[in-house]
Amino acid sequence: MRRYLPEPIADDVVSVLVAAAQSAATSSNLQSWSVIQIDDPERRQAIAAACSNQKQILTAPLFLVFLADLHRIRQFALKHGIEPDGLDTAEMYTVGVVDASLAAERLVCAAEAMGYGICYIGAMRNHPDQVKEILRLPENTFAVFGLCVGRPSENAHADIKPRLGQDQVWFKETYPTRLDSAEYDARMQAFFAEQGMDSTSPWSEKSGHRVLITGLSGREALLQHLQGQGLLER
Amino acid sequence: MRRYLPEPIADDVVSVLVAAAQSAATSSNLQSWSVIQIDDPERRQAIAAACSNQKQILTAPLFLVFLADLHRIRQFALKHGIEPDGLDTAEMYTVGVVDASLAAERLVCAAEAMGYGICYIGAMRNHPDQVKEILRLPENTFAVFGLCVGRPSENAHADIKPRLGQDQVWFKETYPTRLDSAEYDARMQAFFAEQGMDSTSPWSEKSGHRVLITGLSGREALLQHLQGQGLLER
Repeated sequence: MRRYLPEPIADDVVSVLVAAAQSAATSSNLQSWSVIQIDDPERRQAIAAACSNQKQILTAPLFLVFLADLHRIRQFALKHGIEPDGLDTAEMYTVGVVDASLAAERLVCAAEAMGYGICYIGAMRNHPDQVKEILRLPENTFAVFGLCVGRPSENAHADIKPRLGQDQVWFKETYPTRLDSAEYDARMQAFFAEQGMDSTSPWSEKSGHRVLITGLSGREALLQHLQGQGLLER
Repeated sequence: MRRYLPEPIADDVVSVLVAAAQSAATSSNLQSWSVIQIDDPERRQAIAAACSNQKQILTAPLFLVFLADLHRIRQFALKHGIEPDGLDTAEMYTVGVVDASLAAERLVCAAEAMGYGICYIGAMRNHPDQVKEILRLPENTFAVFGLCVGRPSENAHADIKPRLGQDQVWFKETYPTRLDSAEYDARMQAFFAEQGMDSTSPWSEKSGHRVLITGLSGREALLQHLQGQGLLER
């Protein structure tokens, strides 16, 4: 949902949403995530410029950035004279990304139950160095994605995009030896046509192009950014 | 929630839960996740043995393993003559972990709304090579976590663990320069004492020890496993 009514979302409502996020599971109760709310229009502009100018970043009544956050736990540990040497592992990066994602999705479920619409912003990873500057992110943190929240505008109609058949994502006992895109490609082709979108090539082919290095919109350099943040070094 | 009634969960209920998972957002509609349901008692035993023998893996009526899955999209792309060269980037690993986490948490919200209790199993990452063998995971996949689901047993009472104050996780405009664990340490100390759990050292100190290499239960070697799977190589 990318078009919202201009109706602001009061702090006490955001506080309920953050409480929902905090009620998600978190690995070892480390709570390795944080969220930054951006209201300042200039800061929104700067963020939008770093995120391929997605308009909904400017127009959403509430705009949040979810962080994988291993900085907080490091600061707390240092006060006890502990220098945590495990934060730069793939494991702790994974913990931070999972914690941020579970928290965000629980917030989303709460927001949708309250009648809001949402839009995740993965483009937050297009220019992570810029995002870091704009939000003054310290070492051991990383902006995983943004999230727009707002009441859907009256003329915003979003058809629900079909998903893969359950036999392609839900397996029993072991990973299957055969997968087949034909049924879903056909459904998606019909959907694209219905929506007046380009349906010249099937979903499976388009998606293949998306995961070429040349399709990653600069995000192929993410590892360098993360390592600069003291993450994912080993 | 770690103790469940033995009541089985029928396939049509699991199908609804998977539909909830599929209705979560997914980056570029790539749907870079899958879920494997394990019913076979021997396979449950093998998985439990690889996950520090957590008993709820054996007793949960429903046990699921969530995968970051870039294998499916690669197979589909190959049929179109596209060899996707971006799958081994930190970006695509992040996409897979985020997609799996959003799907899982949406399933969890649906399950809890239906009266089920859940328990995530992060120990799935203790021995990823074993897990890979047991589930016959192909290249470009990774078991991010497990999930136990079942009706809470009558004598299962789980107090809700306190979380950090909102001022420690929800920020405005930029990341704060100061954080403070004192208020939460005090609340957690009271909670530990109430639960008859060890409260000799504060949460912030315990958590500091958890993120030492020596506290990671073998997970410090995760990067090697991932690179063996064709993930996170650059």
